[in-house]
Amino acid sequence: MRISRVNHLGVLVDDLDAAVAGFRDLLGLPLEKTEVFEDALDIAFLPCGDTQVELIRPREEGDEAAAWLRKHGPGIQHVAFEVDDLEGSLAELRERGVETIGEAPRPGADGTVIAFLDPRRFGGILVELCQYRSPSEGR
Amino acid sequence: MRISRVNHLGVLVDDLDAAVAGFRDLLGLPLEKTEVFEDALDIAFLPCGDTQVELIRPREEGDEAAAWLRKHGPGIQHVAFEVDDLEGSLAELRERGVETIGEAPRPGADGTVIAFLDPRRFGGILVELCQYRSPSEGR
Repeated sequence: MRISRVNHLGVLVDDLDAAVAGFRDLLGLPLEKTEVFEDALDIAFLPCGDTQVELIRPREEGDEAAAWLRKHGPGIQHVAFEVDDLEGSLAELRERGVETIGEAPRPGADGTVIAFLDPRRFGGILVELCQYRSPSEGR
Repeated sequence: MRISRVNHLGVLVDDLDAAVAGFRDLLGLPLEKTEVFEDALDIAFLPCGDTQVELIRPREEGDEAAAWLRKHGPGIQHVAFEVDDLEGSLAELRERGVETIGEAPRPGADGTVIAFLDPRRFGGILVELCQYRSPSEGR
């Protein structure tokens, strides 16, 4: 498995406009784009260095991100590491007994395929692996 | 204010060895160094791309990181943005009504000076600004 960079920080918020106002207007990060993902999440992408802050607001109560937000309050939910071979990386991890959460791989925002890994193997931290579906995507 | 990169993700854990085992041995991130900060925090630094994962275990119950850990459980507590002029950045932010938490600026780990910003201005997210005390430090 070869991780090239932290692709993004997955930040869950319940007021997307307020969060964008802070990161863009106060800190000066550019708001590169927004995306509505699977009609379930409003996402704002703010690049910084070779990574990006993803501000995510769940649209539906039934969503797993919404459940996390209700339990924890706004916060940094996950860290996503970018790989160039998600299937191969997951195979390596499964050989070492690391399980994924939910369907994996599955479509992610920003033209990626993603997998969430069992937090119990990472000190309780939710780790995502992601890969761009087309090599021309990403930065 | 000019932010150059995400300096680190501040990750609070209650089992540092288990967390290091996950990020280093399973994901392959290098463990660059460890630090005991002010006799209060054990910190492991794992660089990735132009940022780094800081795995932090509080040593003392009275510490504010320990309080966060008790309340939230293990998780990504804060995102730290690196600036080249912390005092100037804080002056800009204060002019716009952004308050800091606790003493600011104050010494941080890894040879930095740091300031934590009021999360209410960032959608509930704890944001740190940091600057290396010596230009020769950092990466």
